[in-house]
Amino acid sequence: MLRPLTLVRNNGIALYRQIAEGLIEQIQRGYLQPGARLPSSRQLSEQLGIHRKNVVQAYEELLLQDWISTSRGRGTFVSTDLPDMEARRLVAIPETLPAPASAPLQLPAYLKIEESVSHLPYHLDDGLPDPRLIPLTELERAWKSALRRGNQYHRLGYTSPQGLLPLRQALADYLGATRGLMVGPEHILLTRGVTHALHLCLTALIKPGDKVIVPELNWHNGNNSIRYHGAELLTARIDEKGLDTEHVAELLAAHDVRFLYLTPHHQYPTTVIMPAARRIRLLELARAYNLFVFEDDYDFDFHYGNVPIMPLASATHDGRLLYAGSFTKAISPAFRLGYLVGEPALIEQLARLRRIVDRQGDPALEYAVLELFRLEVLPRSLRRARGIYQRRRDHLAQLLTDHLGDQVDFRVPDGGMAIWTTFSPETDLVAASQRGRQSGLSFSDGSQYPGKWNGTRLGFASMTEEELTTAVGLLRKALG
Amino acid sequence: MLRPLTLVRNNGIALYRQIAEGLIEQIQRGYLQPGARLPSSRQLSEQLGIHRKNVVQAYEELLLQDWISTSRGRGTFVSTDLPDMEARRLVAIPETLPAPASAPLQLPAYLKIEESVSHLPYHLDDGLPDPRLIPLTELERAWKSALRRGNQYHRLGYTSPQGLLPLRQALADYLGATRGLMVGPEHILLTRGVTHALHLCLTALIKPGDKVIVPELNWHNGNNSIRYHGAELLTARIDEKGLDTEHVAELLAAHDVRFLYLTPHHQYPTTVIMPAARRIRLLELARAYNLFVFEDDYDFDFHYGNVPIMPLASATHDGRLLYAGSFTKAISPAFRLGYLVGEPALIEQLARLRRIVDRQGDPALEYAVLELFRLEVLPRSLRRARGIYQRRRDHLAQLLTDHLGDQVDFRVPDGGMAIWTTFSPETDLVAASQRGRQSGLSFSDGSQYPGKWNGTRLGFASMTEEELTTAVGLLRKALG
Repeated sequence: MLRPLTLVRNNGIALYRQIAEGLIEQIQRGYLQPGARLPSSRQLSEQLGIHRKNVVQAYEELLLQDWISTSRGRGTFVSTDLPDMEARRLVAIPETLPAPASAPLQLPAYLKIEESVSHLPYHLDDGLPDPRLIPLTELERAWKSALRRGNQYHRLGYTSPQGLLPLRQALADYLGATRGLMVGPEHILLTRGVTHALHLCLTALIKPGDKVIVPELNWHNGNNSIRYHGAELLTARIDEKGLDTEHVAELLAAHDVRFLYLTPHHQYPTTVIMPAARRIRLLELARAYNLFVFEDDYDFDFHYGNVPIMPLASATHDGRLLYAGSFTKAISPAFRLGYLVGEPALIEQLARLRRIVDRQGDPALEYAVLELFRLEVLPRSLRRARGIYQRRRDHLAQLLTDHLGDQVDFRVPDGGMAIWTTFSPETDLVAASQRGRQSGLSFSDGSQYPGKWNGTRLGFASMTEEELTTAVGLLRKALG
Repeated sequence: MLRPLTLVRNNGIALYRQIAEGLIEQIQRGYLQPGARLPSSRQLSEQLGIHRKNVVQAYEELLLQDWISTSRGRGTFVSTDLPDMEARRLVAIPETLPAPASAPLQLPAYLKIEESVSHLPYHLDDGLPDPRLIPLTELERAWKSALRRGNQYHRLGYTSPQGLLPLRQALADYLGATRGLMVGPEHILLTRGVTHALHLCLTALIKPGDKVIVPELNWHNGNNSIRYHGAELLTARIDEKGLDTEHVAELLAAHDVRFLYLTPHHQYPTTVIMPAARRIRLLELARAYNLFVFEDDYDFDFHYGNVPIMPLASATHDGRLLYAGSFTKAISPAFRLGYLVGEPALIEQLARLRRIVDRQGDPALEYAVLELFRLEVLPRSLRRARGIYQRRRDHLAQLLTDHLGDQVDFRVPDGGMAIWTTFSPETDLVAASQRGRQSGLSFSDGSQYPGKWNGTRLGFASMTEEELTTAVGLLRKALG
């Protein structure tokens, strides 16, 4: 007896094929037995509410493949001499075996996925770029030309896990010019962002039980990754100058530490810049204690002060420094492209590891971004965005002072895309964030920053000044 | 004293900026001391072989930022009141500290990256699709429309690590219609291919010392990934029906095994189809021994026989079955999109893990492929490719018989994109592969298949019949 067929329009499969394959499946699964009579094409098309030609075409296909037979005047039947009935038996697993006792997998609860809030109209987000400022037209053109030009067997086949050589070359030049990194393409591994770069480094370098130093306030996804790799986290104090290197020195003296993670340029989440003296001290400590240092420079391109301090990686060091950045902020989080910079011997090993992690990047995207470099699109678009974001930063700071001056505390950051804002102790940020969502505003409830802080990041880059004004009005109401 | 400036044309940075930033860096690094005289714009432009306006513009920029000062009639000098000299000290790490004793990282030697051969004109490859058959125009259009439509904050921001819901829905319908998988979007995790799917599963499920069964001949990248995760590999026999499930049963009785990897549809590399009876037996064993089974169905879409046997995942099972596929063959390896299918509770956990591995996929690509489903581009383009590849398979088989009949042994595969070919024992495949490359033909030297086989895969899909004819001529010469 024919079971109901589920047809899905516009799912990429023609209706007649859906019917034919539905019937084959029912025959294979034994629901339709050899010799069973099928409804006429008129009956079935009426049942399904579709044009009869679809059913006629499906039956023709099945006839051709010997799944059904017709007998003039008598009707349509499931064939008694079926083409391949082996698959039918695949349903026949004995149900008498015991079911497994335990849940198959229970990952630690700290591995969480953020709830999506992108349907809301207003976002004082973690510090995201404005999608309206992405050079989309140039990117589309670049993507298109990337697919059409050159050796297609090369461009559209498997490529190097380390990433496209000419893009690594262009990036090396760019990192040299903007960040003082004296590197060539052999120092660079293209990744799918900083998360991916960190995962590769931890997978290669961390054994369970290893100790890793992180700032007491830190990117929670980074902390999660480090914990999941089995490391023990040691938290180092931060203050108004970022990571406290003297506390790091104490930790290093007391523990056998393998790895340290930090965001010296704009400390995440507090946006504080680490002064040069502490950077030097950190490099000395790293060398003295044989420490791997992961320098996450997630938003170097956005600095509004005089001149940014060059990264740790621009200094002489002993080859255990790993420098990571991405195009998340400079283009968009939607195009997954980042980079890891390190000594060539280390980068070569990490590329071999990447081969088994996700094999390679997207060559089309890598060629497209190369094209953006060639056409000088990136510096132009960054310059434009920087000017706009600086005005938005100043506008948000003014709004916070004017409307929430008695409830919040903050320092205008020299760079980045968010203002680290702390709230008076009686403010319930979790409740306020929930009230905000109900009125169309998303902002983080700060629960990822444990302890005394009662603070959160309020992003200023993704909204216009007018939108920021509305958003701060909503924030004020949400804080109650 | 000014050190040489290195300028790179067309690297995405305007020449004047390269000059300005080069000079800032030399000031910061202490090469140019406060008060030092700079060459005139005419001198410097001549030294650099560029138009003078670039140097003039660079000097104007530096003047504006207070890095230099001019004195009418006397010349241009490094400012004695520099804007931010902290960065300068970043070169000052004491060189007296001892250098680290050992190499920072030594990954196991089996983690290798294949040498690129895509510059050669002829490829009897591992079984790659023909890039000339990719629906590029439709893909470009879909990608463009993906970026322009809808909520850009959503589309071009961070998205779900599990992958775009409407694409998972369309894929669920497609997997139901073509493979008999009765799944919804909650059963699917979008990945960046089978390599990535396997890495996620192993990272979640395997502890060092766990035992994993693999076929004695197997995808070497899969084996590498399993080994790198610390598992002990147990190899199960294969024969002309694929994996020998009775040998699997013996291994399970003798060892505590956690995980099994297989390619039942077209056993890799031998292309043999595993009959239904063995599949049922394997599912019974998996249930009895609480085994995770990873079913890699890398080329289901390419089957030229009557009707393909449905995957293991289409049968009732106990929820420890993981089914992986990708668009590598259906679209191109260059667009990194694949999927993992499993019980929703397991998939939800793996999505949380993916959050710290590489965060998410590319929304633009996910939207573009959704569009290909909506426009029914994929089934149309697959149907076309299948017809072409079947003729190429037959053509290659004929060529091998006609020209190398006395040296090779093979069976025409029912599906996939390559013919598993074994060679007479006196054939030195490694030497032959090297000779082939010298004359413009790439084919694998079979060294990834250990032991008695002396075989390799000869791909037929990526070349026209004419190209295949030339390639087999070159192969014959290379075999000597």
